[in-house]
Amino acid sequence: MEDCVFCKIAAAEIPSVKVYEDDKFLAFMDINPLGKGHCLLIPKDHHQDIFDMPETLLRDLIAVSKRVAQAIKNGLNAEGMYIWQANGRAAAQLIPHYHMHFLPRWKDDNLTIGTWEPVPGDMEEIQAAAKEIKKGF
Amino acid sequence: MEDCVFCKIAAAEIPSVKVYEDDKFLAFMDINPLGKGHCLLIPKDHHQDIFDMPETLLRDLIAVSKRVAQAIKNGLNAEGMYIWQANGRAAAQLIPHYHMHFLPRWKDDNLTIGTWEPVPGDMEEIQAAAKEIKKGF
Repeated sequence: MEDCVFCKIAAAEIPSVKVYEDDKFLAFMDINPLGKGHCLLIPKDHHQDIFDMPETLLRDLIAVSKRVAQAIKNGLNAEGMYIWQANGRAAAQLIPHYHMHFLPRWKDDNLTIGTWEPVPGDMEEIQAAAKEIKKGF
Repeated sequence: MEDCVFCKIAAAEIPSVKVYEDDKFLAFMDINPLGKGHCLLIPKDHHQDIFDMPETLLRDLIAVSKRVAQAIKNGLNAEGMYIWQANGRAAAQLIPHYHMHFLPRWKDDNLTIGTWEPVPGDMEEIQAAAKEIKKGF
């Protein structure tokens, strides 16, 4: 969809730090990460939210989501994995293109989910995490 | 699994306020809700987290999750829907039986995700919300 940031990322019109790609889905690093290893998984086709996602595509997406979660866990030796997905502005969905968040967790990471204000991360650290995640597949 | 609260809820050994049930899955109200309409969806079989969930079961679960989310949205006239799923103690998973959370959102609900301390909700309000959600299917 025109003017959709995630459509442009899917079409490689905007660069992203990819960790997984197939014909239907793309997983890439969040450049405003809530913590180390924060990734997003999107369908390449534009669907606004879960209500707009065809069931067949959702089924394929969750299979891919397990692989992505496992790769993040393996690659970064994560102790836990928080996965979320916001639908609608009232749920704080910022980009109206379906996306699933993955946030690896460690017992001592002191992260507080929910107080997240998008702040650009260190691109070298993001690139380094992506490299480890890709090894985790 | 013995001593698993969600296995006992699935087996109806512990009562729950159900909103959806089929042969593989159960959706019921969270009795420590973060907000109005907070529901959980679980597989009836015991699987600890996403890493332990068979892919075929995950595929069926996400199809059911869309129906549950839609029913909550319809039944409670929600403006948004926050969906999450925690894996491992480090990600604050309290019950080690896979569960997906659904939290309907409204623009003016003033909820802060992440500062959630489990506090028992008002059972009459929970029952009333469940009744509306069931109408939403």
